[in-house]
Amino acid sequence: MSEIYKDFAPLDSSKTPRFAEVATFMRTRSIPIDQAGVVDVGIVGVPFDLGTNFRPGSRFGPAGIREASRIIRSVNGHTYVAPFEIARIADLGDTPVHTVLFDESIQIITEYFRAVRENSIRPLSLGGDHTISLPILRGLVQSDPVGMIQFDAHTDTHDSARGSKINHGTPFRRAVEEGLLDPKRVVQIGLRSTISAQNEYDWARSVGMTLITMDDYESMGRTAVIEEARRIVGNGRTYLSFDIDGLDAVYCPGTGVPEPGGFSMRDALVMLRGLRGINFIGGDICEVSPYLDAAGITSMHAANLSFELLCLLAEASRDYAA
Amino acid sequence: MSEIYKDFAPLDSSKTPRFAEVATFMRTRSIPIDQAGVVDVGIVGVPFDLGTNFRPGSRFGPAGIREASRIIRSVNGHTYVAPFEIARIADLGDTPVHTVLFDESIQIITEYFRAVRENSIRPLSLGGDHTISLPILRGLVQSDPVGMIQFDAHTDTHDSARGSKINHGTPFRRAVEEGLLDPKRVVQIGLRSTISAQNEYDWARSVGMTLITMDDYESMGRTAVIEEARRIVGNGRTYLSFDIDGLDAVYCPGTGVPEPGGFSMRDALVMLRGLRGINFIGGDICEVSPYLDAAGITSMHAANLSFELLCLLAEASRDYAA
Amino acid sequence: MSEIYKDFAPLDSSKTPRFAEVATFMRTRSIPIDQAGVVDVGIVGVPFDLGTNFRPGSRFGPAGIREASRIIRSVNGHTYVAPFEIARIADLGDTPVHTVLFDESIQIITEYFRAVRENSIRPLSLGGDHTISLPILRGLVQSDPVGMIQFDAHTDTHDSARGSKINHGTPFRRAVEEGLLDPKRVVQIGLRSTISAQNEYDWARSVGMTLITMDDYESMGRTAVIEEARRIVGNGRTYLSFDIDGLDAVYCPGTGVPEPGGFSMRDALVMLRGLRGINFIGGDICEVSPYLDAAGITSMHAANLSFELLCLLAEASRDYAA
Amino acid sequence: MSEIYKDFAPLDSSKTPRFAEVATFMRTRSIPIDQAGVVDVGIVGVPFDLGTNFRPGSRFGPAGIREASRIIRSVNGHTYVAPFEIARIADLGDTPVHTVLFDESIQIITEYFRAVRENSIRPLSLGGDHTISLPILRGLVQSDPVGMIQFDAHTDTHDSARGSKINHGTPFRRAVEEGLLDPKRVVQIGLRSTISAQNEYDWARSVGMTLITMDDYESMGRTAVIEEARRIVGNGRTYLSFDIDGLDAVYCPGTGVPEPGGFSMRDALVMLRGLRGINFIGGDICEVSPYLDAAGITSMHAANLSFELLCLLAEASRDYAA
Amino acid sequence: MSEIYKDFAPLDSSKTPRFAEVATFMRTRSIPIDQAGVVDVGIVGVPFDLGTNFRPGSRFGPAGIREASRIIRSVNGHTYVAPFEIARIADLGDTPVHTVLFDESIQIITEYFRAVRENSIRPLSLGGDHTISLPILRGLVQSDPVGMIQFDAHTDTHDSARGSKINHGTPFRRAVEEGLLDPKRVVQIGLRSTISAQNEYDWARSVGMTLITMDDYESMGRTAVIEEARRIVGNGRTYLSFDIDGLDAVYCPGTGVPEPGGFSMRDALVMLRGLRGINFIGGDICEVSPYLDAAGITSMHAANLSFELLCLLAEASRDYAA
Amino acid sequence: MSEIYKDFAPLDSSKTPRFAEVATFMRTRSIPIDQAGVVDVGIVGVPFDLGTNFRPGSRFGPAGIREASRIIRSVNGHTYVAPFEIARIADLGDTPVHTVLFDESIQIITEYFRAVRENSIRPLSLGGDHTISLPILRGLVQSDPVGMIQFDAHTDTHDSARGSKINHGTPFRRAVEEGLLDPKRVVQIGLRSTISAQNEYDWARSVGMTLITMDDYESMGRTAVIEEARRIVGNGRTYLSFDIDGLDAVYCPGTGVPEPGGFSMRDALVMLRGLRGINFIGGDICEVSPYLDAAGITSMHAANLSFELLCLLAEASRDYAA
Repeated sequence: MSEIYKDFAPLDSSKTPRFAEVATFMRTRSIPIDQAGVVDVGIVGVPFDLGTNFRPGSRFGPAGIREASRIIRSVNGHTYVAPFEIARIADLGDTPVHTVLFDESIQIITEYFRAVRENSIRPLSLGGDHTISLPILRGLVQSDPVGMIQFDAHTDTHDSARGSKINHGTPFRRAVEEGLLDPKRVVQIGLRSTISAQNEYDWARSVGMTLITMDDYESMGRTAVIEEARRIVGNGRTYLSFDIDGLDAVYCPGTGVPEPGGFSMRDALVMLRGLRGINFIGGDICEVSPYLDAAGITSMHAANLSFELLCLLAEASRDYAA
Repeated sequence: MSEIYKDFAPLDSSKTPRFAEVATFMRTRSIPIDQAGVVDVGIVGVPFDLGTNFRPGSRFGPAGIREASRIIRSVNGHTYVAPFEIARIADLGDTPVHTVLFDESIQIITEYFRAVRENSIRPLSLGGDHTISLPILRGLVQSDPVGMIQFDAHTDTHDSARGSKINHGTPFRRAVEEGLLDPKRVVQIGLRSTISAQNEYDWARSVGMTLITMDDYESMGRTAVIEEARRIVGNGRTYLSFDIDGLDAVYCPGTGVPEPGGFSMRDALVMLRGLRGINFIGGDICEVSPYLDAAGITSMHAANLSFELLCLLAEASRDYAA
Repeated sequence: MSEIYKDFAPLDSSKTPRFAEVATFMRTRSIPIDQAGVVDVGIVGVPFDLGTNFRPGSRFGPAGIREASRIIRSVNGHTYVAPFEIARIADLGDTPVHTVLFDESIQIITEYFRAVRENSIRPLSLGGDHTISLPILRGLVQSDPVGMIQFDAHTDTHDSARGSKINHGTPFRRAVEEGLLDPKRVVQIGLRSTISAQNEYDWARSVGMTLITMDDYESMGRTAVIEEARRIVGNGRTYLSFDIDGLDAVYCPGTGVPEPGGFSMRDALVMLRGLRGINFIGGDICEVSPYLDAAGITSMHAANLSFELLCLLAEASRDYAA
Repeated sequence: MSEIYKDFAPLDSSKTPRFAEVATFMRTRSIPIDQAGVVDVGIVGVPFDLGTNFRPGSRFGPAGIREASRIIRSVNGHTYVAPFEIARIADLGDTPVHTVLFDESIQIITEYFRAVRENSIRPLSLGGDHTISLPILRGLVQSDPVGMIQFDAHTDTHDSARGSKINHGTPFRRAVEEGLLDPKRVVQIGLRSTISAQNEYDWARSVGMTLITMDDYESMGRTAVIEEARRIVGNGRTYLSFDIDGLDAVYCPGTGVPEPGGFSMRDALVMLRGLRGINFIGGDICEVSPYLDAAGITSMHAANLSFELLCLLAEASRDYAA
Repeated sequence: MSEIYKDFAPLDSSKTPRFAEVATFMRTRSIPIDQAGVVDVGIVGVPFDLGTNFRPGSRFGPAGIREASRIIRSVNGHTYVAPFEIARIADLGDTPVHTVLFDESIQIITEYFRAVRENSIRPLSLGGDHTISLPILRGLVQSDPVGMIQFDAHTDTHDSARGSKINHGTPFRRAVEEGLLDPKRVVQIGLRSTISAQNEYDWARSVGMTLITMDDYESMGRTAVIEEARRIVGNGRTYLSFDIDGLDAVYCPGTGVPEPGGFSMRDALVMLRGLRGINFIGGDICEVSPYLDAAGITSMHAANLSFELLCLLAEASRDYAA
Repeated sequence: MSEIYKDFAPLDSSKTPRFAEVATFMRTRSIPIDQAGVVDVGIVGVPFDLGTNFRPGSRFGPAGIREASRIIRSVNGHTYVAPFEIARIADLGDTPVHTVLFDESIQIITEYFRAVRENSIRPLSLGGDHTISLPILRGLVQSDPVGMIQFDAHTDTHDSARGSKINHGTPFRRAVEEGLLDPKRVVQIGLRSTISAQNEYDWARSVGMTLITMDDYESMGRTAVIEEARRIVGNGRTYLSFDIDGLDAVYCPGTGVPEPGGFSMRDALVMLRGLRGINFIGGDICEVSPYLDAAGITSMHAANLSFELLCLLAEASRDYAA
């Protein structure tokens, strides 16, 4: 391992068993944001779930995913990417949040991600409900809108919920309106579920987002979906948002609204591995609620998906200027 | 929404959050059978599990499925069918049952479904164990036998279990013998599992039922299976029975006998959506046992399947005379 | 049963098994608030948990307690009080709440309880986190402050949490400040747990509340505690608030912050039965979080406690003017 | 160990770890009833739950208790009774039952216990729901009625449930009517719970049974309760029936109707140890439903209680003629 | 059924319900090894998990699988093989193990399987962690190395773990080194997961093992994988080792290290059925940890897979000399 | 707070919500042993469970207790001790252990605690199974034997288990033999459970240990038990070992062998608070197995007990020379 990376390696499981020591993400080094100038990719928990419309609890998502990440080994078994050998990776801990005050939480999360941007760190954020993508993007995107690949059962582009403009059903509508996302460079994969109105998907399509429902996914085939996603985001700066409910419900009982009929973990892993080379500026895994889970499988899946994002972000940090 | 349907809409989640209020099915209007003359499609719980040979508990199936249905939205996200806009749909509550007396229960369930028929209601029944399909058919079928599409791991056409002629392994043998089902118009999809004898499937085939095992399913492909099912039942009056154990076991740990190697929820949803236009006179979802479940996924899947049946029954009520 | 009460009896389990039909509280009659003028005691769900500082989920408390109340029989086995024979009791459903907007929720809950008061109904509220006691009291108390008997591990009289003046740690400080509670007529029973500061209990004592810690409880003995509580609230109008975490943690794993070393369900039942004759204007059971529970015991205990409150409120409605 | 007992010892855990080998009760020798002539005390499973009015599943009670009994060591740590050194003890397996046919099950269970009696075996029966005590007593009691010590939250002396004369709410009414029990020599300990009518306990008292409610239990004190129970049954032939729901609900979440406010396992253990010297002809542990349990504690408690009964029965077999 | 097999049939579920009696594997006859001379195929539990590097508990695997096997019926529903009609099958109980002493356990397990070999029994072993395959092979393989088909997420061919040469990550490296396995006749199917080093698979390939990763599996297709496995092991003596974590994680939450992205139970069942005719000398199902499971699905899947192995071993015992 | 302690305070929950950030014990400062010279009291995880005779998994005890400690506040609500204001407290992380090699683990744990002693730190150890008390004492006790107060259902003074001299049933026999413990100054509180032989307690008594069974506990009363324990250990150096199974089983389903009939958490808390002023040199909480737990209550109880030990150790560090 290169000298500059050796201080950032996870604990060596041949010396410290995987069940031992406090679980930062993959038991990698813990560095707070104010000392993280040298970090290339930072894991950040965002324990916020006040935007949840149904079953809450994703405020415990970061803790659950970190605990489940004990068993993640340091090399990708299919792409052979070894993220800790190509980037300085640290667990930055959690963003500040307020337990009760919604607007204040959104504000301090936003400020945190401004600091992340100012430190040129590519964040891998562990949610939290999907609301968090909005303050993350507000913090990360300074000028030009970015593209996004979103894995999700729902578009999360509602306008509002009974007067609430910011909640876990609306982040990407707001992000487009605020110029954070370029809708032409946004693709949503895995859409399905019962819907509230026959025009549910109209707004997203009207602004130019590409929506790939599970019917589309099946008819196109996984390989074509990957190619389409790559084509849409192209070479520009791109964000990746993975709502765990994009997975078929059996893979994520521990989420607020599990939806049947989605793609499998095999599908998810292959799709993520198919996105190498994109200029990802950050990513998130959202909506993991450990107290709703069965035998920890949702957190375990989220930890594995997080590792795939880590590989993508590590490669992006190596290949692109921050 | 048309005037005649507006009294039958579920609670509006933008006004009443989905976690609020008592859960009738999809939080739709509750109307007892004796006031249900105007109803087109009625949800009916049948909390009966005395016919169970292994793990009991499906008497709690109706309660479990209704609770899980809180999150089901009112429009089908793939077919765009909006059942509450084309039919008057109500939750009729549960049939009477006796907690201990088997024969009396069968009798009073039968009588209940006679009233359902006399009110020209297409029932969506929530079991209960699979025994219930027999009294349902006894109540619903007055003269000519009907066809049936059955999703199931088991044929449920045993002759008897140690002297018991009516139990959850025998309903469809009885139904054929009693002239309730036309075996030539019966198709069973998803058969598999270890079996008790090498001639397990012989009787069903001998009377003309079509059996599609999982090996058949895989070799035919899902599209051909849908076509075959449509061909077999044709345009006649048809019943739909969905034993939750038709699903692969990971989708239904909360059933008496989960069986590995079955079709997925994606498969189930696509098959059900492929059955539009058939003259369904009623349907049931059976064998959901909430106390055996993991994180509520079986009830959640059953609620989603129930919604698909609701769409089929609503369309049938619009398209066919009762 | 007296004629005037017969329309308000729960379903008869000898006719409709306890596992059948939708579960209103004890499967009693459902009447919305705008038709509830004749009701003496009303069960009200308050599915609000946005004031929670640690583990959320009590928004599902009303649903959980109602489901668990299926098995509650209609007569108190120790006092022989039969509430449905002395009061018109109905399940009024849930208060409106907003899923995300905190202040709006507090406002509409308050308004709901104004209507409860205007209908001269004594409410038995099912929480929801303990924040709800504040809007309940705001709605119920029009002029003179009331007394209160509170069962709780925590005083819930904090001043604020990082700028938040209303949350589940502060309701009774606000209620005293707003003149809703007469602190001299407030007794808190069951206090214990680790605390945030050595002066944790000072404010409550400084305004005249009586605090009975578990050490006090043990040294006084249960009978003396009951007498002390009766003495403190006297004959005046009194509210009863039962935070489920007042119970020892083994009785309530399904709450946000279970605390060891509390009183048992036996203690709670005997204490509640010892409070007969007090002029209770309403009561609540808070902080039940079904998704955190083990085998449903917390909801089951809450349902039993709710029945004891129902007996107290039914007697109060008979014995005191509304 | 005496020569005559050495063939009946449980597996030696110093040689075969407690997690190894199939779990008969305490991993003791398995002998079917038709070869059990030499056995003094026989463990018998009665996997019957068709008499259940609410939550079924106690048909899995015998399997659950046996599995939990792996860890029970062979000597009583408080009385130092070593049952396997004073009696020939074997696990006789399960009685026959029918999965669906109620009356036939009652019949064949009765016949089984006739054989038990004819073999002069004192049975320790593992239920099954409380219905089973009736066919057990029918089989065991040939001529004179016997006494009974019953631990239970409910009297189980209802007359009938909607036409059903035999179910888990009625066994002891039937047993008195049939001359199997002498009600003057029956004591019920632990009664509580909400009740269906104010006269719930009248019949039992009218025929001379002694009912000790939890209020009585507390006011008398445990020692006096033991003395009272001993006084009531005296020196005559006595049966012991332990409904697991006699325990406070936290000790038995895995039962059909857990009831709060009961006695603890410490209480139960001390009471059972206080009954040494009584001429017990058999006993049962009922209403354990493993699928309703949390972390196996109900089965574990039932296994420990079963061991205490085993000690009592072993001593009785030594001290009294069969 | 042939006369010679009739003493070895499982309990008849039409006479003894599946929930009744102690659960040997499929409730078949229990015969200890020292009386098992006549047995063709023997089920053997190996409750050993001291070789586990992460989450322990597979010492309870044999008990869990046996309990789950109650529902397995005696005929294969797809191949129609009826193992109990072509082989004398018995449950031999568990091997001895030591609870704490590692080396002694390995030694006594090895000796046990020597006795299995000397009795010409083909063992179906229920683990236990994957370490057990080493002492099994040491006992079974006397002279020439055998082939092996292994289903697994991991190769289990590590050299050592911090000085430990025998643990659940190393059995097949040791087996090759000791001449128990012919690596040219070894195929591993299902490999995936994050890995510890980029050369993770090198040793296995260097000695001639065939490794089929999930990427390979998908690109080859299931049918080709079956053919390749058959080709590799050919007609020689072959062992089958099925690590339950070969399955996709949703099928086996109850294992030490569930890995996402694996094959389904449908895949597993079809692959096993595709291996008929091979000269299997024994097989194992490893790494089932019931206390980590959700709703028993892992044990249930393991029981079904065990039945498929039983069919293969029964046919092998019929078709090949021992 | 005094200047010297301010660097060692837990995270302030008014700024960082309790669900946020990685959970060291009480979210206090993490300092590895080689930088811990200034620490007075150190929390140490000992993730070792290879000495377990029945259900393993306590290797995850440290992780489980730390996660549960998020909610522990910094002041004792009954004694008002504020440990972080009187001692420098840090979470030292976990001791090294080997995942498979027993003897090596014992050796490296011993060495770790030698370093603890050499740094004059009073350790609060989180197990791990009860074996760990032996290497802890070997490390901590250099010359004169120490006294011990042990809370436990079992004496853990067996001689050996089938040749194994060190396992979780033997640590205190070894400790006495090795001169680490002065048996005259050892008291064991809470003994009960079935036992393996009638002489189970003889050895411990023969060497002078004081054994307080639950029968003794009840007859003496809790206050007298506290006084007796204080009398026995006197003013000398004393160790405190709390096996979580000392608690009644309902408080600790998540342990290897829960035993009914023990003391309550209330009892435990009061007893621990009654031990102030003793010269405790260290203490441990053992046998917490999170994967066996129900709703996390065992870990939660262990976290609360750990806080009480922390108070005792902090006071001892203030009052006694190290």
